[in-house]
Amino acid sequence: MDGRLKQRLAQQRGIVEAGLERYLPEETGAFSRLTEAMRYSVFSGGKRLRPILALETAVLLGGTAETALASACATEFIHTYSLIHDDLPAMDDDDIRRGRPTCHRAFDEPLAILAGDGLLTAAFEIVVADEGLPAERRVAVAAELSRANGRHGMVGGQAADIALEGSTPDLEAIEYIHAHKTGLPLRAAVRIGALCAGAGEADVARISSYGESIGLAFQIADDLLDETGTAEEMGKAVGKDRARGKMTYPAVVGTERAAARAQELVRTALDAVEPYGEPAWCLAEIAKYIVSRRS
Amino acid sequence: MDGRLKQRLAQQRGIVEAGLERYLPEETGAFSRLTEAMRYSVFSGGKRLRPILALETAVLLGGTAETALASACATEFIHTYSLIHDDLPAMDDDDIRRGRPTCHRAFDEPLAILAGDGLLTAAFEIVVADEGLPAERRVAVAAELSRANGRHGMVGGQAADIALEGSTPDLEAIEYIHAHKTGLPLRAAVRIGALCAGAGEADVARISSYGESIGLAFQIADDLLDETGTAEEMGKAVGKDRARGKMTYPAVVGTERAAARAQELVRTALDAVEPYGEPAWCLAEIAKYIVSRRS
Repeated sequence: MDGRLKQRLAQQRGIVEAGLERYLPEETGAFSRLTEAMRYSVFSGGKRLRPILALETAVLLGGTAETALASACATEFIHTYSLIHDDLPAMDDDDIRRGRPTCHRAFDEPLAILAGDGLLTAAFEIVVADEGLPAERRVAVAAELSRANGRHGMVGGQAADIALEGSTPDLEAIEYIHAHKTGLPLRAAVRIGALCAGAGEADVARISSYGESIGLAFQIADDLLDETGTAEEMGKAVGKDRARGKMTYPAVVGTERAAARAQELVRTALDAVEPYGEPAWCLAEIAKYIVSRRS
Repeated sequence: MDGRLKQRLAQQRGIVEAGLERYLPEETGAFSRLTEAMRYSVFSGGKRLRPILALETAVLLGGTAETALASACATEFIHTYSLIHDDLPAMDDDDIRRGRPTCHRAFDEPLAILAGDGLLTAAFEIVVADEGLPAERRVAVAAELSRANGRHGMVGGQAADIALEGSTPDLEAIEYIHAHKTGLPLRAAVRIGALCAGAGEADVARISSYGESIGLAFQIADDLLDETGTAEEMGKAVGKDRARGKMTYPAVVGTERAAARAQELVRTALDAVEPYGEPAWCLAEIAKYIVSRRS
């Protein structure tokens, strides 16, 4: 990774970690175990890609990191809840995530289900309670968050993914799944940053194009890593997607064409933020990093 | 049930059913199964107590049923999601709900988890997208909904309920569980009605007292029905709570004292809405019905 990007991501991650601490503090008392399970998964060393994208976009479009912080943390709460529920025995049945036992392994299944439910609810709670934003912007952020992650977004993509497990790989289906499971939530992260900054329509449209492109590129890169990465690098089991007959991009078009498609999407993303010039350098570098990462 | 109440509930239920149809319409296409699972549980003949309470309160405090309809439906979405996740094999492992197979039995476990997630997300989606309410009220409704149903509300109560399964019954613990699992969500339903109507602080306080009282009364009545009702009446398995060592109110203080406590709570609820006189007749009758019902 580019040294300048590395430094910037570390700095932004610091802001995000502090925000997550603020919005999900430790609790004591007899009933603190639920919060413990929620915190276990939230503070497990994630890349914080979604909240960082929200902060970067907010700052690029005239806002501050502080005005977008609650909304940025909400995107991470939702991302974390989706991983917890995804890992459940009835779903992907994964034991390891980010190099540690998954939530239902570290705690138990009921608590993992509830920790996910609690995080999803908390995401909306912190957005609508954010007094740093006028009510109209809170509404806009919550609307984006719910649309992108609900039955016509991430949850719908998950359901389609499961429904199509084991069926013949098909480009239309795989693009639908990826667009909903990963594309819309990532696009939402940058759009939410733009909404927090009070950006106008033209900016929101440009940033949406960027978000959509890196969203799909990210998922294709993930599929490729699942085939070529090691468990040590990834902090989770690899090769499982293909083994269980999941639709993956490389399974449909082959590794080479998948990699080429990811590169093409990165170029689209770069074109979208090109008009902002130097101030968008970090978003541009993130787009490149997404397809070159090893984990 | 009182004939006048029966007629009014039927009328309000009609409004609620139409609202639920509006906010969760059938879908066609390859990926419609998730919506089908969500609708299966939403349209399974529930009493619609929460949304009816929201509508009644809104109308009592100067609003219309229409202005509160989206928010009312959101309370029912959340109630339904909580039942779906509650019934899962890892949680209460129930096969029958409202006389029909539970969601994970009618569909499968992954889809039931996702249907719950989708309904929780949809609840916030329809509230913040409700153009009939000013942004400030949408924010207030979503805040109430998230606080009452999140980790310091319903989800927290569920976690405590599970954590304390099998431990010695204790009045403080059981009241904590009931207040969070059922009390706060029911209180939220009436508060949300008040918020939609733009009610002032004094009205919100009165209606909160009403909601809190009927919330706890409802749960005590539920505990009593679990011991004395029949499966046919209840549309679900009975006697399971005590069998699995769940904390119930009668288990702690005995059937007689539990029934007396429920009656006392009904009186508190009636006192709270007494100042409104005749226009509050339906809320008063609902409070009485809650402890006299057979299912």
